[in-house]
Amino acid sequence: MNTQPTLFTSFSPALLHLYDLSDSIVVIIDILRATSTISTALFNGAKAVIPVDSISRCIELGRQIEGITAGERDGKIAEGLQHGNSPFEYPREFVEGKTLVFTTTNGTRLLQMALDKGATEIVTGAFSNISVLCDYLMVMKRNVVLACAAWRDRINLEDSLFAGAVIHEVGKYFSINCDSSNIARSMYESAKEDLVGFMQKNNASHYHRLMGFGLEKDIRYCLTPDLANVLPKYDNGKLTVQ
Amino acid sequence: MNTQPTLFTSFSPALLHLYDLSDSIVVIIDILRATSTISTALFNGAKAVIPVDSISRCIELGRQIEGITAGERDGKIAEGLQHGNSPFEYPREFVEGKTLVFTTTNGTRLLQMALDKGATEIVTGAFSNISVLCDYLMVMKRNVVLACAAWRDRINLEDSLFAGAVIHEVGKYFSINCDSSNIARSMYESAKEDLVGFMQKNNASHYHRLMGFGLEKDIRYCLTPDLANVLPKYDNGKLTVQ
Repeated sequence: MNTQPTLFTSFSPALLHLYDLSDSIVVIIDILRATSTISTALFNGAKAVIPVDSISRCIELGRQIEGITAGERDGKIAEGLQHGNSPFEYPREFVEGKTLVFTTTNGTRLLQMALDKGATEIVTGAFSNISVLCDYLMVMKRNVVLACAAWRDRINLEDSLFAGAVIHEVGKYFSINCDSSNIARSMYESAKEDLVGFMQKNNASHYHRLMGFGLEKDIRYCLTPDLANVLPKYDNGKLTVQ
Repeated sequence: MNTQPTLFTSFSPALLHLYDLSDSIVVIIDILRATSTISTALFNGAKAVIPVDSISRCIELGRQIEGITAGERDGKIAEGLQHGNSPFEYPREFVEGKTLVFTTTNGTRLLQMALDKGATEIVTGAFSNISVLCDYLMVMKRNVVLACAAWRDRINLEDSLFAGAVIHEVGKYFSINCDSSNIARSMYESAKEDLVGFMQKNNASHYHRLMGFGLEKDIRYCLTPDLANVLPKYDNGKLTVQ
């Protein structure tokens, strides 16, 4: 009898309904750039990140709690917000002790969707915090759903690669009856020597969108492991480090 | 200006709504085993394959037109039907000149869904007819959507691998702004020397389901190129070879 916990990968919010979230740790993945930036802000001492799903709610809440309003739509700083979702906007000297109110095209929307679908434990994952995430998943011995934010429901390379990287690390501790997980792992294992090169070669659509905005530095940061090794955990409306 | 036609890959019926089917050739892909068997039956001289989405409709229509009723649910011959969806059930001496009425868990359902979503040109693809399919896509110079049947909306390895194989062959003639396509191609290119071995190593869920039913011979057939090189095309309720 197999008593290992299960692991599934959802490549798109449009596939999330296929998985049982209520009995799993749900890992929200939005590599370019929401979850990379969330771990960075918390690593640099932010008190909390409050994910919200609309710009108007972001502005309203930011005013109420005197927080930093931040976020993007379609890869650019959203109109009316103070900051975007580049990890470089949140160094310690700026963010320490502050609360970010944060809204993004895909990542914060997916988090809200996971809550609506009954998720009871939500953390965020990115290359920037991959080691602490993997350690956590191994220690907890609970079922896991790796939930990729994708791009307007279209599967993307970077979130899928990250799911593969996690499975490459922790897969042997889980029962994996999930071809999405197998696809992700196989892809990561053929890409791992040079993730940036793999993204370039495979013409990742979001990579090129951001390159067009001059964000190569962000991309390199977001594909580098362990630059902000804390585990953002969602509780009571906020992402914080426990 | 890029005047190449576009190519997109839909890894699951649950993602099909993201793509414009009305202005594309839609390729239905259900490697284990519906589309492999469809090309085989037509290659072996079947007059037509009529895809239907329910067992009761299959039985009713089979009686009306004196056709062979065939299909599966969950990988086994469906109750009330005469035949299953193994390509080996349809040799020339049995199938020549006959019409198959065919229903499967995923493939025929996807075809119906593509019609409902406005597809105007539908063909079926499998390793068994990959060369004639690729030749057709190159000649037509139209937009293409590779539509994987998956397994109850969950992405599977074999349909994704086939999409990758097609893109490996014809990708340079299309504009591909689609990470699913990039994932599929990259996976196929790392798997192509030994597809069966890749399926085994990567623990493909449907592969193991069928192996459990003793269907190794079917799997090897369905992963072998060009054993039944005809192009099934949907028109007026039927798949036929033009």
